[in-house]
Amino acid sequence: MANISILGTGNMGQAIGGLVAKGGNTVQQLNTSSAGEAVTGDIVVLAVPHSALADIVATRGDQLAGKIVVDLTNPVDLATFDNLTVPADGSAAAELAKELPQSKVVKAFNTNFAGTLATGSVGSETTAVLIAGDDADAKAAVAEFVSAAGLRAVDAGSLKRARELESLAFLQISLAAGEKLSWNGGFAAVA
Amino acid sequence: MANISILGTGNMGQAIGGLVAKGGNTVQQLNTSSAGEAVTGDIVVLAVPHSALADIVATRGDQLAGKIVVDLTNPVDLATFDNLTVPADGSAAAELAKELPQSKVVKAFNTNFAGTLATGSVGSETTAVLIAGDDADAKAAVAEFVSAAGLRAVDAGSLKRARELESLAFLQISLAAGEKLSWNGGFAAVA
Repeated sequence: MANISILGTGNMGQAIGGLVAKGGNTVQQLNTSSAGEAVTGDIVVLAVPHSALADIVATRGDQLAGKIVVDLTNPVDLATFDNLTVPADGSAAAELAKELPQSKVVKAFNTNFAGTLATGSVGSETTAVLIAGDDADAKAAVAEFVSAAGLRAVDAGSLKRARELESLAFLQISLAAGEKLSWNGGFAAVA
Repeated sequence: MANISILGTGNMGQAIGGLVAKGGNTVQQLNTSSAGEAVTGDIVVLAVPHSALADIVATRGDQLAGKIVVDLTNPVDLATFDNLTVPADGSAAAELAKELPQSKVVKAFNTNFAGTLATGSVGSETTAVLIAGDDADAKAAVAEFVSAAGLRAVDAGSLKRARELESLAFLQISLAAGEKLSWNGGFAAVA
């Protein structure tokens, strides 16, 4: 059984907390009012907006050493809605990995709308969680709790692929905002 | 009724030719052995590998002036299979548009596997053709022949979004090559 901490109690934090419980794993749910409480999980999901990462690195960076850190952020430029705020050849996950050299950073969940994590499906397909990272064991640990909750875990490659995962999510958000995809749907992965 | 020329008679060229005919539009199909034959369509689909674009620009660039040019290429680095060969903040479509300033360049079909154009579905969803471009009329003309063939045309935004469409396709190809998505499936768009 894995111990999983989730920072953030918004839509994504709640949905992922639900998955952890569903899979029979232990969840510690923290938010900004839990500043004094240490992270206890071996896997820590940062279920926060991209803009909150810097503060987490500053205040909890030491606690995250040795842990698997899951980044689900999408660094969409909310002023223009026309680009991402990270370098074009990089990703939010790559930047986070640089800031947390002692942690195993994994990109996951950023391409999933919260509703599809809760229902377990995108249209008639099982919700697929695309997972990218450089540490095979860390990816396997994330895949395990995703699969335990009945979702489909898909290894999307090295952490370099976070760039494509963030591009896909940006496109998906932009299409949903334009009412061309449903916020309860999005891109389904057809195997 | 639209006149549509397709350069290329490979899987994608054949599949798109089938769509054009299905929608009751006229198709001119050309390949490398038709070098002497002029392009007659108002819409010209370049159903070729990315590496063939430079030659088409050189030999047929003048003929493409004033026309809608559809780019479906994915500039995947076939040596490393780990990145695209275009600048990270650009796209094959943006580069083509620079080379063909007299044409209206539209990105479309690059996120569709050929089989899903022929069958009209990705899993249980109607195949969605994501279309990006800076000229609204050009995009509408492409959307019209896509819709006429029974597929779903989705306006994905300006030509700048070709970057995300090419990222999505790269990820899709990479997952299919790793047997995590089907070559007859891929990412379905759930509205």
